[in-house]
Amino acid sequence: MKLHTYYRSSASYRVRIALGLKQLNAEQAYTHLTRNGGEQFGAGFDALNPQHLLPVLEEDGLTLNQSLAIIEYLDETRPASPLLPADAAGRERVRALSQAIACEIHPLNNLRVLKYLSETLKVTPEQKNAWYRHWVKLGLDALEATLARDAETGRFCHGDMPTMADCCLIPQLYNARRFECDLSGYPTILRIEEACAGLPAFAAARPEAQPDAE
Amino acid sequence: MKLHTYYRSSASYRVRIALGLKQLNAEQAYTHLTRNGGEQFGAGFDALNPQHLLPVLEEDGLTLNQSLAIIEYLDETRPASPLLPADAAGRERVRALSQAIACEIHPLNNLRVLKYLSETLKVTPEQKNAWYRHWVKLGLDALEATLARDAETGRFCHGDMPTMADCCLIPQLYNARRFECDLSGYPTILRIEEACAGLPAFAAARPEAQPDAE
Repeated sequence: MKLHTYYRSSASYRVRIALGLKQLNAEQAYTHLTRNGGEQFGAGFDALNPQHLLPVLEEDGLTLNQSLAIIEYLDETRPASPLLPADAAGRERVRALSQAIACEIHPLNNLRVLKYLSETLKVTPEQKNAWYRHWVKLGLDALEATLARDAETGRFCHGDMPTMADCCLIPQLYNARRFECDLSGYPTILRIEEACAGLPAFAAARPEAQPDAE
Repeated sequence: MKLHTYYRSSASYRVRIALGLKQLNAEQAYTHLTRNGGEQFGAGFDALNPQHLLPVLEEDGLTLNQSLAIIEYLDETRPASPLLPADAAGRERVRALSQAIACEIHPLNNLRVLKYLSETLKVTPEQKNAWYRHWVKLGLDALEATLARDAETGRFCHGDMPTMADCCLIPQLYNARRFECDLSGYPTILRIEEACAGLPAFAAARPEAQPDAE
């Protein structure tokens, strides 16, 4: 199993956490997202993923992309340490929490969007940072409200074991801190973050802990 | 079962198609996304979904959000006319194709993002349209390359029966046409669109066919 990753790619970070939680080993291959205009646009990468996005997981003759789809695949093919609950309602909730991050926050703040804002729309650095923080705040406000309200929230986003939702939450918080977003209004989220930080899988997946970290 | 929907919400459109393909009936409740500053920001809606996003599906005492999570829930609880394949690799592919739209194209082009561009960043209508078409082109270029290349592509995105990926593709194409995106470079996508157009579930879910259409 080979994971194409970049230390700061938060979609890769999600899959690194999932691999760790499931105690699976994957060889890592590094794609530098900013060097030489982005190695993900190189000829070799195009065959792996025409979307030019990380992560990509090669395994068993398959070339898999999209982080949440990869995590579900790992969960279906290696049922030990499940990352989704057994009941349909719980699965819906974990997927919805994951998508509240992966569809509503992260797509607006990834590298290519920030580049378009700066290079094409010529926004100022202040406007770019305000954009970033606007979408993080909107998304985390809603997530905090949901997590604080729902009886299903436990030590982690869903119950007392980490799920795919936690795999999405922690990289999003890492990004939010990089852009100095104010997280003080999110006590439930911060409590869950602390619970995750205590687990080796989350610690090992951190960007700073990766061999390609700069 | 009650679906909170808006005729032009493409995430609602995805779920409308899925309900039709699975021959399920849901009462519809209409939330107007632009009237009175957006009915999704009203007090009543907040209790349904603190994300202030459509669709929301109420069923069996549950309040479900996020379109792809809802579709998977419907598929798990009503197995007839499956919208995901039976094999893990096929499921990964259908989820990844769905997410290539739901995480990479649509989030950049929805109403609240276009409003931020116009009202906060004060971009011109031409810059807003160029933004829209830029992300549609990037996403559909990659999707066309994937669909044209993969042996798994059939009459529909995955094989010869419609899946969740087709539920995502058709609303995205509807949006692309509204913004006059050039779709001529996507023969595989257009062929799949034609196959979908022949099915009653896709026809019935079209925005123009909804009771709340204007």
